[in-house]
Amino acid sequence: MANPVLPSSGVLSPLGLDTVRLLPGFWGDRVALNREITIAHCQEWEEREGWIGNFRGERPRRGREFSDSEIYKLLEAMAWADHPGLPALAETVAQAQEGDGYLNTKWSGSRYTDFEWGHELYCYGHLIQAGVARLRMHGEDQLTKVVARAADHVCRRFMEDTQTCGHPVIEMALVELYRVTGTERYLEMARRFVERRGLPALADIPFGRGYYQDDMPARQAQVFRGHAVRALYLASGVVDVAVETGDEELLKAVESQWERTIARRTHLTGGMGSRHIDESYGDDYELPPDRAYNETCASIASIMLSHRLLLATGDVRYADVAERTMYNMLATGVALDGRSFFYANPLQVRVPAEPLEGVNHAAEGGLRSPWFDVSCCPNNIARTLASLPAYVATSTADGIQIHHHTPSEIRHGDLAVRVETGYPWSGGVTVTVLEGGEGRIALRVPAWATDATLAHGGTVRAAAPGYAVAHGPWRAGDELRLELPMAPRWTFPDRRIDALRGSAAVERGPLVYCAESVADEPPLGDLTARVSPPVEHHTDGVVELEVQASLGAGENGGWPYGSAQDGRPSGADVGLRLVPYHRWGNRGPATMRVWLPI
Amino acid sequence: MANPVLPSSGVLSPLGLDTVRLLPGFWGDRVALNREITIAHCQEWEEREGWIGNFRGERPRRGREFSDSEIYKLLEAMAWADHPGLPALAETVAQAQEGDGYLNTKWSGSRYTDFEWGHELYCYGHLIQAGVARLRMHGEDQLTKVVARAADHVCRRFMEDTQTCGHPVIEMALVELYRVTGTERYLEMARRFVERRGLPALADIPFGRGYYQDDMPARQAQVFRGHAVRALYLASGVVDVAVETGDEELLKAVESQWERTIARRTHLTGGMGSRHIDESYGDDYELPPDRAYNETCASIASIMLSHRLLLATGDVRYADVAERTMYNMLATGVALDGRSFFYANPLQVRVPAEPLEGVNHAAEGGLRSPWFDVSCCPNNIARTLASLPAYVATSTADGIQIHHHTPSEIRHGDLAVRVETGYPWSGGVTVTVLEGGEGRIALRVPAWATDATLAHGGTVRAAAPGYAVAHGPWRAGDELRLELPMAPRWTFPDRRIDALRGSAAVERGPLVYCAESVADEPPLGDLTARVSPPVEHHTDGVVELEVQASLGAGENGGWPYGSAQDGRPSGADVGLRLVPYHRWGNRGPATMRVWLPI
Repeated sequence: MANPVLPSSGVLSPLGLDTVRLLPGFWGDRVALNREITIAHCQEWEEREGWIGNFRGERPRRGREFSDSEIYKLLEAMAWADHPGLPALAETVAQAQEGDGYLNTKWSGSRYTDFEWGHELYCYGHLIQAGVARLRMHGEDQLTKVVARAADHVCRRFMEDTQTCGHPVIEMALVELYRVTGTERYLEMARRFVERRGLPALADIPFGRGYYQDDMPARQAQVFRGHAVRALYLASGVVDVAVETGDEELLKAVESQWERTIARRTHLTGGMGSRHIDESYGDDYELPPDRAYNETCASIASIMLSHRLLLATGDVRYADVAERTMYNMLATGVALDGRSFFYANPLQVRVPAEPLEGVNHAAEGGLRSPWFDVSCCPNNIARTLASLPAYVATSTADGIQIHHHTPSEIRHGDLAVRVETGYPWSGGVTVTVLEGGEGRIALRVPAWATDATLAHGGTVRAAAPGYAVAHGPWRAGDELRLELPMAPRWTFPDRRIDALRGSAAVERGPLVYCAESVADEPPLGDLTARVSPPVEHHTDGVVELEVQASLGAGENGGWPYGSAQDGRPSGADVGLRLVPYHRWGNRGPATMRVWLPI
Repeated sequence: MANPVLPSSGVLSPLGLDTVRLLPGFWGDRVALNREITIAHCQEWEEREGWIGNFRGERPRRGREFSDSEIYKLLEAMAWADHPGLPALAETVAQAQEGDGYLNTKWSGSRYTDFEWGHELYCYGHLIQAGVARLRMHGEDQLTKVVARAADHVCRRFMEDTQTCGHPVIEMALVELYRVTGTERYLEMARRFVERRGLPALADIPFGRGYYQDDMPARQAQVFRGHAVRALYLASGVVDVAVETGDEELLKAVESQWERTIARRTHLTGGMGSRHIDESYGDDYELPPDRAYNETCASIASIMLSHRLLLATGDVRYADVAERTMYNMLATGVALDGRSFFYANPLQVRVPAEPLEGVNHAAEGGLRSPWFDVSCCPNNIARTLASLPAYVATSTADGIQIHHHTPSEIRHGDLAVRVETGYPWSGGVTVTVLEGGEGRIALRVPAWATDATLAHGGTVRAAAPGYAVAHGPWRAGDELRLELPMAPRWTFPDRRIDALRGSAAVERGPLVYCAESVADEPPLGDLTARVSPPVEHHTDGVVELEVQASLGAGENGGWPYGSAQDGRPSGADVGLRLVPYHRWGNRGPATMRVWLPI
């Protein structure tokens, strides 16, 4: 089974890359572009920046202390994509491994001297994930041998220690290596890393131990906090440990942290992380659209976590959040040409970004960049898109569940089906049985789809949010047709979100929309929208929307606080074009806003 | 004339510490507390942290690369306060000066190798300001000799160079040293530092050259940008250079930058700086109450700049902004006991800060701290309060102008007056002539005081915002009585400030008010206030206010974005107590908000 996550128990079992094939469509196109363009793009930049050369012993060493991990993420992407470049790159990596399995181009001469910021175990984590992918897609080879030696080194060095890494990821990597190899010490090592964190295991830092989730044990936390990627990678590992050790209490702890985080610390796009300074969540209801950090990697981590919780519990809410995050964060993170990337993903941009040549040294969110000093996001996108088919569907003893509706062929046991749909642009999803079989077919109905219907065997019935289930047995040619209501809808924020008071956003299907102003289009600074039904414009296979709004000229008005409430805007009435958020920033420097003052 | 700023030309001439004496009252009490407590507090911490020991050659050197400057700010405070500890501290500093005048405990062995972050010229700037203070309060001594040698070294080293410092302050320091000594090369050196900045003079950094205002010449900029303290220190120096060289264009450039900054980048409290990550302004209308950085030092720099622009132009707007910033930022920066300080000054705090022991390694704004790793704010407060009398009043050929109404005695020529007032708690200001003389007496009427009156010689007349002027000649016993309207007032934000939409604040006189919740008082997360006249409570010489509000319990509600606009709050009706913003945080960890949802 070719999956990044293969729990030995849980309500749902994932179908993998060997049983789900994406066809041309929203995700199929992106997965193909990723394989053809983005993977090579990443490798080219890693070569150019010297990060691959580090493994060849080229000196001076280049890149940040965690740059090894970028090569490992890329190797993982190559493994899932069955990319021909993998063996040569793995050969280069193998050169740097030391006799006892230690492997790190930065800390080789001063091993384990900085657990807070050194990222050594973090790098192993990504290396192990690459090895897991290779084992599942291909079987043993040089890469997987490197991985086994490294993992054994980690277990020898840390099993009886009290240390852990400032950046989690080793936890979920070791559990998965246990799952694929059956070697129990990997699971035990992961369990110990989880349990020793927060005792505390690391030194205090100016950001506070909450930054790397070492302020309290995962079992006791109430909400995700601190650095968002770290928090979500850790939570994913905690779920993996909980599932494999049957630790219900630990699983429940993560579920309730997730619930509070979703209710109070998540942006409309599914993005997480409100602060730039420490790339952290911020406080409950601190959800500024303009300074939202929403790191692309945090959204990938959120998808990983939701997927794990979905598998463990079968609760559709996790798939709903994963879908929101996939369409509005993962798809946003990479340009339509597959060659540039967002690091931060704000929901409002007031000043168009200045185009940059070459490496972006910052992590702002105004324009996609081909590469960053810290280039986690491009490689993380590459490995996630390469394994995306594994997120689409699951199985239980009595059938299959299709969570994400995108053109695909899905096979489980004797049953094979084809999914055809124009989703997310249109709401019809047709499932045609290619090869007959037994069991139920369950199609997810998102929470926003309150008027969905399912047609099957000549009858049409209402399909409430959750799963619309049809029962077999199935014969080739049988057809299911799910109709999701795709009318655009206005969405309003909880009144406790101070930064969004007095504004509303427009969504359609799973997509969040935004106003975007490029070049000499009127700026969006003094905008007031009317809450009336948006008009749809279908062009080039994309649905844009139009709402009525008033746009002011933005003149300077002196001291901006006064005794009178600002009256009705005096700007010009315009038809304001809204584009899917994931497409913004593809037409050059722009201002943008998801939340429209009303 | 004992003043930190003594321009040789300009519309207004400042009265100084030798002619303005503060009496017990809002500012007089704070100036006395500063002299008695805060100055010693700072010296004690600088000794404890080893920053003074650095000058004695104690090794390893301790503190950040700019820690020398803290001792210099403290020396300036001591000079203005005529503090007996100055000579001994100056003696310690003198020990570290090298033969050619170079003086820096950090870079002694590697002079001028890092202009971007080294802060060497920045340290000289503060040293020179201390020397200026000493020269004006006392005359030449060891400190002023150290300063002269250092300033001459700077001129020799940098006059023909193209470099400048990543952190401005040397510019205004050198102009002031020119003003006090008449040595023209100091002015020329300052002029060159101003003119070479932005050509550019420094390397690019991840924050961008705008961070240290090296993105364009000061003459061309449209608005203050980048690191707020740097921006405002530079602008102060630019005004000084413009005034001394008669460069009207340069002065106008700063005036228009100030105007746009006030209209678009200033918080209600007068605070500036919206971003934590680079302590910078942020974009126009990016004014988040919760993440407002509003560094105490930036507010001090803003007061310095407003004061310079007031002197140069006589425009009352500068005094209005200075007053707002003094009452709501400077007074907020230090605790009522003079022993702890705010670094950042947000307008909303959602989660009570955790009390810290000892040095605060971060710069958050939830609780005042006795000391910081970067302890600019305590020392900056100390030197500003020590010189505060110099900001109160000015003179022209035809009289005096009183800009800040606080109990004081003011002398100019033959004329001597006493100002008696309960301001800012009450609105009556009585000016009694102690010794007769000629000329007009002008009393500032703040912009919010739209119904003020001036009583003089048996008649009462309306006094519009600006200056209420009464004409002499004056005899001892003559009296002027200004009445400023002190009714609390609701204030609303410009609709372009996204973060404040749907909320309002309460002000009374020059004071901004806030809701504060300590210990087990109800939290402020789900608050809706009614815009009706606030009720006053006068207690212990302080005016608190009460407004009607609804306070919700803050239960968790799942996904916080939905199809329905949040209806009327279902919380409990309460009388919500508002306290002056400058007093918040004196009762222990608290949540707080200036802007109340309405």
